[in-house]
Amino acid sequence: MQMTEAKRGRATPEMEAVARDEGKSAELIIRALAAGRLIIPRNVKREGVEVRGIGEGLRTKVNANVGTSPDYANIDEEVEKAKIAVKYGADSVMDLSVGGDIDEVRRRILRAVKVPIGTVPIYQAGIEAAERGSVVDMSSDDIFNAIRRHAEDGVDFVTVHCGVTRAAVDALRRSGRLLDVVSRGGSFLAAWIIHNGRENPLYSEFDYLLELAREFDLTLSLGDGMRPGCLTDASDVAQFQELLTLGELVERAWAKDVQVMVEGPGHLPLDHIEANVRLEKTICKGAPFYVLGPIVTDIAPGYDHVTSGIGGALSAAFGADFLCVVTPSEHLALPTVDDVKEGVIAARIAAHAADIVKLSEKAFERDSEMAKARASLNWEKQFKLAIDPEKARRLHERSPSKEESCSMCGKYCPIKLLAKFMKKPEPRRTRCW
Amino acid sequence: MQMTEAKRGRATPEMEAVARDEGKSAELIIRALAAGRLIIPRNVKREGVEVRGIGEGLRTKVNANVGTSPDYANIDEEVEKAKIAVKYGADSVMDLSVGGDIDEVRRRILRAVKVPIGTVPIYQAGIEAAERGSVVDMSSDDIFNAIRRHAEDGVDFVTVHCGVTRAAVDALRRSGRLLDVVSRGGSFLAAWIIHNGRENPLYSEFDYLLELAREFDLTLSLGDGMRPGCLTDASDVAQFQELLTLGELVERAWAKDVQVMVEGPGHLPLDHIEANVRLEKTICKGAPFYVLGPIVTDIAPGYDHVTSGIGGALSAAFGADFLCVVTPSEHLALPTVDDVKEGVIAARIAAHAADIVKLSEKAFERDSEMAKARASLNWEKQFKLAIDPEKARRLHERSPSKEESCSMCGKYCPIKLLAKFMKKPEPRRTRCW
Repeated sequence: MQMTEAKRGRATPEMEAVARDEGKSAELIIRALAAGRLIIPRNVKREGVEVRGIGEGLRTKVNANVGTSPDYANIDEEVEKAKIAVKYGADSVMDLSVGGDIDEVRRRILRAVKVPIGTVPIYQAGIEAAERGSVVDMSSDDIFNAIRRHAEDGVDFVTVHCGVTRAAVDALRRSGRLLDVVSRGGSFLAAWIIHNGRENPLYSEFDYLLELAREFDLTLSLGDGMRPGCLTDASDVAQFQELLTLGELVERAWAKDVQVMVEGPGHLPLDHIEANVRLEKTICKGAPFYVLGPIVTDIAPGYDHVTSGIGGALSAAFGADFLCVVTPSEHLALPTVDDVKEGVIAARIAAHAADIVKLSEKAFERDSEMAKARASLNWEKQFKLAIDPEKARRLHERSPSKEESCSMCGKYCPIKLLAKFMKKPEPRRTRCW
Repeated sequence: MQMTEAKRGRATPEMEAVARDEGKSAELIIRALAAGRLIIPRNVKREGVEVRGIGEGLRTKVNANVGTSPDYANIDEEVEKAKIAVKYGADSVMDLSVGGDIDEVRRRILRAVKVPIGTVPIYQAGIEAAERGSVVDMSSDDIFNAIRRHAEDGVDFVTVHCGVTRAAVDALRRSGRLLDVVSRGGSFLAAWIIHNGRENPLYSEFDYLLELAREFDLTLSLGDGMRPGCLTDASDVAQFQELLTLGELVERAWAKDVQVMVEGPGHLPLDHIEANVRLEKTICKGAPFYVLGPIVTDIAPGYDHVTSGIGGALSAAFGADFLCVVTPSEHLALPTVDDVKEGVIAARIAAHAADIVKLSEKAFERDSEMAKARASLNWEKQFKLAIDPEKARRLHERSPSKEESCSMCGKYCPIKLLAKFMKKPEPRRTRCW
């Protein structure tokens, strides 16, 4: 197990790969992983995975969600979404399938891409129970068996909504939300708790979950079933009751050398983001923070890649480690392949904008190269450095200029004009601020 | 003149219209306008303009740029861009034409939309000089005559790069930028200063500019010719040398009852934004701040509506008053009509996300209405409340669900599921944070 080795001061091949990838020393990776502030999700059963480190001191990572729905279950399309997500820079893919042959989608995606793969096994447990009667009929065994099934297939991390407890449901009732629960897994478990009058098995049998995770070195992503689904509900008692529970579980996981990250909102006003990141980092003792957006206004369906780009950039700049892609179809429909691409790019922009703050010069070289390519009107180099070279080229070539400049200014290009009159000193090489 | 009346404690019809539009008292508008912290751009010659207030205590406003280029000058298309910009929520339009019949484009746009219109007359002065020889041959008279011509046509505000002084050019030389000047007007004037060895007439003859502005109650937008064009150049000596000059000019304008706002960057790392807003507000004594982006990474050509959405939201949350739209074509080509639409929507999202912070409940009602519409799965209401109803509907209907929910979760919609099990208290009516 990664954490066991890290605690013994030993670098695994995965830690060495992350150290190389991030330009950090193996010692630094070992120390942060041992302390739980950095994770490397990798199921021992999964072959050929290109590992990623997520957490303190590393580049902000991006996860893309794919997966079928009961209304539309086309496995090829979900595989295509996973591939395009990775092509445009997703560091991991989560398969959230809830329609068709769920086992088959997961297995196809695990074979199709090499990045770490996550799933939410409670969906399958709930759906199989629903097919027999109702979601609330699922048993504790159904839940753990689904997790085992996913782990056996090689899934690297799973979302487990362990914090959706009776206490959290009580807090939810008191909170008077506009939108009670917008998390699918959270709603399954909240309904289950209310219907059965019992505690969430993922909480009451958390030790068993840890045993299961240890078998595969399965990373647990502690789900935020109580995340706010609109700005009005942001940062309320239900959300923080759950977070307090997750903080407790983080320490229990670490005691068993199980890697964990913590999921966060959701929908937040801009000025709630810093507090949410700081509280996760204090209550969960520095465990990596995986944010689902956050979306900073509710009124832009069709553009939630933009609303979450704003929230994601700010979250990551304040210390969030992992951004979940939100596509333009969020709140409206199952995303298309193009939607996934749009969402990944917006999240990559957010992550990179934050890394410029977090990592300074390191994250910054490509921006300076772009500036130099712009100064010399070197278009091929600009396309090459662009986050989406094809689109940059297409837009540039769509309205060609008669000049070497672009068609916005044409012969009145400020760069060309001033170069004629300005004698320049050597450009500075480093960021001075 | 608006400012003269405000200083006398009198509300003009324009101030009353802004007070109604913003839900503020006329007294508050009078006070802020008299102090220069709020402007209402409106040329006395312009008929039928739907005025907008820009500044302290008001909703963040959005400006969309349109205009021809030497490579492509289709007047109908620019008029169409202005119309679509206003349709999607632009509060003003700037005509930045530098190709074809510049006078005709401006006059057509002034007739086509009712929002305040801005221009950059130095473009026309420079281009007419270039047609006779070179941009640097333009005379002081050429510059002021162009401004007068635009004002006579009814333009409500003009960008004047008064801060591109010899001192700023000296600072530019010392700064060793990767990209010296990316402002078109700034490059015209910097080249002019270097070539002619004389001071910028917009600075040396600023009193004459104020006389001209007084004739039309023309609002001056003090341009940032030295704005950084890449992250490496952000917040450098050239940028702040110019800002110091603008601070001086703001007070001189106010002394003559001329309304002013101050333009700002440009390209900034996320963690420079707060400092840039605070400094503008202190150095320019609370004059409205009009930011051009800012863009938070240089590597995303094709997606600069997203990079500037991030920077714009943050700027406005810290106090910027006016956001300039950046389209996906920025850095690549003259934007299309669709690009302008995309850019306006991203800027509107940024402005709204910031207004939730700035104005609290007031800016927030529509978000809560959206949350309620989501809770009741009322799709028609969701479309109606959306920033782009057509796109929201199109995406939703593209992959229809068999259920009343959307095709993402279908029959496993968390909202539907939990509603069956949860007995709710009355939802709270106000934002509690």
